[in-house]
Amino acid sequence: MLVQTQYLQIPFIELECGETLSGVQIAFETYGQLNENKDNAILVCHALTGDAHSAGKYTKEDPKAGWWNAFIGPDKALDTNKYFIISSNVLGGCAGSTGPACQNPITGQRYALNFPFITIKDMVKAQLKLIEELGINQLLSCIGGSMGGMQALEWAITFPNKSKSYIILASAPYQSSQNIALHEVGRRAIMSDPNWRNGNYYNSTAPQDGLAIARMIAHITYLSDKTMHQKFGRRIRGKDELNFELHNEFEVESYLTYQGRSFIQRFDANSYLYITRAVDYFDYSNSKLSEALAKGKTKDNSGRKFLIASFSSDWLYPPYQSLEIVRALQENNFLATYCQIDSSYGHDAFLLEVEELSSILRSFL
Amino acid sequence: MLVQTQYLQIPFIELECGETLSGVQIAFETYGQLNENKDNAILVCHALTGDAHSAGKYTKEDPKAGWWNAFIGPDKALDTNKYFIISSNVLGGCAGSTGPACQNPITGQRYALNFPFITIKDMVKAQLKLIEELGINQLLSCIGGSMGGMQALEWAITFPNKSKSYIILASAPYQSSQNIALHEVGRRAIMSDPNWRNGNYYNSTAPQDGLAIARMIAHITYLSDKTMHQKFGRRIRGKDELNFELHNEFEVESYLTYQGRSFIQRFDANSYLYITRAVDYFDYSNSKLSEALAKGKTKDNSGRKFLIASFSSDWLYPPYQSLEIVRALQENNFLATYCQIDSSYGHDAFLLEVEELSSILRSFL
Repeated sequence: MLVQTQYLQIPFIELECGETLSGVQIAFETYGQLNENKDNAILVCHALTGDAHSAGKYTKEDPKAGWWNAFIGPDKALDTNKYFIISSNVLGGCAGSTGPACQNPITGQRYALNFPFITIKDMVKAQLKLIEELGINQLLSCIGGSMGGMQALEWAITFPNKSKSYIILASAPYQSSQNIALHEVGRRAIMSDPNWRNGNYYNSTAPQDGLAIARMIAHITYLSDKTMHQKFGRRIRGKDELNFELHNEFEVESYLTYQGRSFIQRFDANSYLYITRAVDYFDYSNSKLSEALAKGKTKDNSGRKFLIASFSSDWLYPPYQSLEIVRALQENNFLATYCQIDSSYGHDAFLLEVEELSSILRSFL
Repeated sequence: MLVQTQYLQIPFIELECGETLSGVQIAFETYGQLNENKDNAILVCHALTGDAHSAGKYTKEDPKAGWWNAFIGPDKALDTNKYFIISSNVLGGCAGSTGPACQNPITGQRYALNFPFITIKDMVKAQLKLIEELGINQLLSCIGGSMGGMQALEWAITFPNKSKSYIILASAPYQSSQNIALHEVGRRAIMSDPNWRNGNYYNSTAPQDGLAIARMIAHITYLSDKTMHQKFGRRIRGKDELNFELHNEFEVESYLTYQGRSFIQRFDANSYLYITRAVDYFDYSNSKLSEALAKGKTKDNSGRKFLIASFSSDWLYPPYQSLEIVRALQENNFLATYCQIDSSYGHDAFLLEVEELSSILRSFL
């Protein structure tokens, strides 16, 4: 499947922090055809460091397809013969949508730390503009894993008539204390890198060491103890005996180093700061979710339905957090299907458990 | 209980890496009295960033007592009316024992990265010299949590006749892949700090940012999701509303910042590199533990007995790793008692579950 990125221009977005962001661009891709009734559209929301390129390749020679290619395409779970799939880079991102690395149209300078704070709700507002631009009144479904699941949940709350269903994978109704802490360490690594220069690194070297460390920490949280044991164990690089080196001696270390180094090629450090913060601010904890859902519901809930799926070894967004979503949905009499998928892949399972997850997605859709 | 630190000089130690370390000093403290038969001595081994000061105060004015003061003292679980408690700073440490911050007696320069690689076995070798110096032929018990538990296990393997019992808390027979990865991120944070200067920072500013970040990561692993939720939740510092700040906005963030900042006052970054590496190298995985224990056992195992305790919410050294120790002991017909203590404190439970753990220690001893 060959695809291309398109760009939507939005004159301005009023943000939750109170500021107005002008001259906003949103990068997006679509796969499949929108039908005549315009009722076969599915919005795919990406996770922390994802982008609009969720499926297909730009050219036949591309070594890798989009990040959810296993699920999107002809005859796949999100079947492009049936559905019109939309995927966009989040506001604040660095893959074509307006973010801190972009030029502020008012000052002519890069935003850097003058970029306003964004939230999951702001990301979703930008997505609504895109849907409207595409002439869609109501989505068939809104789907996402991790931070993408937070966006799907936010759609259900903020624009309750704009989607018929929601699929929330490996996600949570709020960012936990532990996860705020993990994000904070990553941000601290970036902001302690002297190359960060208070965010003004665009004309010099980027804070690569800091960003790589942030990615290394995050990457550990995407896996599980068991997966790391199976994948790397205590294997030493290329030898049977200890080399006595301070780092990169064990295979797991060089794997993490590789993850860090490849991440800095594709991601902007300031975007990482702003997007992790947006996730930290996501807060439908305690009774907030049930109350927020109650506001948007109609008598019969317009037939809106939810699929919530968690993965047994996910310690970043553990199953108990998905169950909190399910409980709030039940309190509001929404149709909610919950699956806990047994997997050793940890949080990344929503990208890797293709067979099981595909079958669940197919039957739900 | 007022205490003081003493120092043992050891002419040289032959290390597992093949090098010989000359002019070694070991800082130690003792509490209680060694009896006439010299059979009431208990060695307390400390965790990653601990020191010899496990109990008591140096002066009445000290704001804090030693790190395991809740367990050591008159009428406490390690009752100083009955037992002679010995506690020493590990080889490679930075609290009185020889480590990378010390002067190499041969060159007159600080060791820095010329310090040889050390292992848990090397730490234990230094402890044996101390025990011998104190005129003790056999310990009554050897006890430790976390890395301290690894030392206790190493005593059982390397000097099988030198202790009558072993108490291994919140520990593991080997460092897991995930934990090597977590250590690697911490080391990377230190080594990426420009103040680290390839280890030669002793005449300039220390790599404080890097060391603080390493501590922040580690500190998260010492707690549990539940404890962090209960202790900090999503509370914002001093306000009810979001401040929109890139860091130190949530209470959990300022707590971690405090932990990082206070750690750099007391710990040497190079010691952190070397000691985390020693833990990474600890490897009685698979059949290695059973085989190593088999070598040292006698027909009746000389009545040697083991207490292994894990904590339900400890995700750094989870209960399954303690159970691997128990299985290897059982394979070799050792007397092994295993307790899994229900606790929400995570790994730090071995410092905090005073009542439950004290009662278990008392009955075992």
